[in-house]
Amino acid sequence: MPAQPGDALADIDTPALVLDLDCFDGNLERMMSAAGAAGVRVRPHAKSHKSLQIAHRQIAAGAIGVCCQKIGEAEIFLGGGIRDVLITNEIVGVRKLRRLAQLAKLFSGARLGVCVDDTSVVRQLSLVCAEEDAGLDVYVELDVGQNRAGVATSAEAVELAREVMRHPRLTLMGLQAYAGSAQHRRGVPERRAASKRAAAKAAEARALMREAGLPCEIVTGGGTGTFMYDAGGDVYDEIQPGSFVFMDFDYARNERDADVPQFEHALFVLATVMSMRGDRITLDAGLKAFSTDSGPARPTFTGWQVQSVSDEHSVLTRLDDSGPDVRIGAKALLVPGHCDPTVNLHDWIVTVRRGRVEDVWRIDARGAVF
Amino acid sequence: MPAQPGDALADIDTPALVLDLDCFDGNLERMMSAAGAAGVRVRPHAKSHKSLQIAHRQIAAGAIGVCCQKIGEAEIFLGGGIRDVLITNEIVGVRKLRRLAQLAKLFSGARLGVCVDDTSVVRQLSLVCAEEDAGLDVYVELDVGQNRAGVATSAEAVELAREVMRHPRLTLMGLQAYAGSAQHRRGVPERRAASKRAAAKAAEARALMREAGLPCEIVTGGGTGTFMYDAGGDVYDEIQPGSFVFMDFDYARNERDADVPQFEHALFVLATVMSMRGDRITLDAGLKAFSTDSGPARPTFTGWQVQSVSDEHSVLTRLDDSGPDVRIGAKALLVPGHCDPTVNLHDWIVTVRRGRVEDVWRIDARGAVF
Repeated sequence: MPAQPGDALADIDTPALVLDLDCFDGNLERMMSAAGAAGVRVRPHAKSHKSLQIAHRQIAAGAIGVCCQKIGEAEIFLGGGIRDVLITNEIVGVRKLRRLAQLAKLFSGARLGVCVDDTSVVRQLSLVCAEEDAGLDVYVELDVGQNRAGVATSAEAVELAREVMRHPRLTLMGLQAYAGSAQHRRGVPERRAASKRAAAKAAEARALMREAGLPCEIVTGGGTGTFMYDAGGDVYDEIQPGSFVFMDFDYARNERDADVPQFEHALFVLATVMSMRGDRITLDAGLKAFSTDSGPARPTFTGWQVQSVSDEHSVLTRLDDSGPDVRIGAKALLVPGHCDPTVNLHDWIVTVRRGRVEDVWRIDARGAVF
Repeated sequence: MPAQPGDALADIDTPALVLDLDCFDGNLERMMSAAGAAGVRVRPHAKSHKSLQIAHRQIAAGAIGVCCQKIGEAEIFLGGGIRDVLITNEIVGVRKLRRLAQLAKLFSGARLGVCVDDTSVVRQLSLVCAEEDAGLDVYVELDVGQNRAGVATSAEAVELAREVMRHPRLTLMGLQAYAGSAQHRRGVPERRAASKRAAAKAAEARALMREAGLPCEIVTGGGTGTFMYDAGGDVYDEIQPGSFVFMDFDYARNERDADVPQFEHALFVLATVMSMRGDRITLDAGLKAFSTDSGPARPTFTGWQVQSVSDEHSVLTRLDDSGPDVRIGAKALLVPGHCDPTVNLHDWIVTVRRGRVEDVWRIDARGAVF
């Protein structure tokens, strides 16, 4: 473990993930009260944090359960006492489907849901559920702009929903309608419009399903970048924000909307200056301590900029004299560009409050990749 | 575990890291015989594979030990029976230095070395070694073009070496002289020239150290991209190649040199087609299954190109009809852009030979980030 309760920030072994609990608590409260006011339920995405400690805090704050992407994650969250888990993803192949059915059987007192976008998979799922004496909630995924998975049209959604209804082991719950690419559109009007298009498409599919006599109790989707627009309409029953608990700087690049609650950076990578020469410092954190798909983690202090990142190092060069006094052994807080794959690199999150370590939480589903 | 011995490739749960053992064996043999012919010792970098199984195979093939970057890695390799470990990195801060000294004490029958580039750290290291009754090998790191760590000049190397000699717990072994940025220079003449410059600088420092009566038994450095040039001169006693066992496509971008042994791609990410629509397929492997810092993992088959990568997905679109028949559930082999941070995402490497799973190896030092 990189720290002990009571340690100062400077005592934490680095590189380490550090969670500012005051910011975390504030982010969670803002999300829950905004969603409550809008009348939607919150099912936070646990792929962001992969932590039972955080999932239980989200549920204590009013979340109805969690989302995840992999069976391995669902196993950990169900095993850790979360009673309502939705895999917002397609699961394919008999081996995986059997594992899913066995999980549903093992936790038959909990809710477990999965998404489908293909008839043949629905039939295989039904078959293994019968073999394993299991039942599952099923959501038809509708592509509402992500262009990644999901059926393309409302007509196809109806057709697939009809197929699900033919299998008594499967309970058709509704629609998964997540517009992932909408989350990071920079301008407020663009994000709002993308959310509106997604909701309109989901509403059309829901209407067609209901016309056809098919149940569609829940439309679920939406993320940190669009949740207020998603929640504000009358289409989404549930929202699935993940990143809001941490906030990475890629989300911070989005134009702010004064009508939407703002979230603070709560998650940091703590690093140590391990070498310095003139106007160059080298930190002990690189590609194995943060993901660079949205750019390298950025220092929270001024006067220095990231010049290069390699596996275990980040090299910073001096921009001007505005920054702190730097010496070998000094600690540096960095804001990750993209929290989800950054969290997945670590075994532990060190929680701090006003500069003191409060606890060290295991990242329970770290590496639950399949 | 994602597979069992005897499984076919199609049975492996995905996403999974897959190692082709015939290619791996060939890569190891080519490296060892080339280095043997050139008269240099091989100390493979274990930061690439983080695996005791691989480290022991490297040593059985003639490697003298391994390199690593972190104390956590050194703990695992020493604990797993590797008797000679060099941390090719600076370790700073009393907490970490004490852990290092304790490790040296615990494995006092083995060799453990570390790099230094700062006088104050040498003094702290000496102090904790005395307190813990431990001794360590020390290498002065000389910056030979990486511009990341290491002293800048031969004169500084001599000065720091002299400081090391003042501390009886520390054994001055020689110079760490790794030109990391030289490894990925695309042209053969550029790589050759960068290696030559690095070797010349190391030779100068060694000569000055010897003139000053300081020991410099070992000059160590060099990587997969330059090892034959490093090995060919009379400066390097040891080379530290890591990536050669796996080969990523970033190394494959280097211009080939007919005089240098070529390595084959031995490491793959196996994924499954989890959704498809028209000329688009979605695989179940994304940023949490491979690192994208050198670009997304690339399909081994023709006819398709990667369009986008998100946390758990890669979307491929059709280029032409040259590719294989694709259906939901089909498996896809991908070549990682950068092996080291990709390996670090996984708990297991599935080893295969001629399409059958031979074994599943734990990635022992996965996540040993501090």
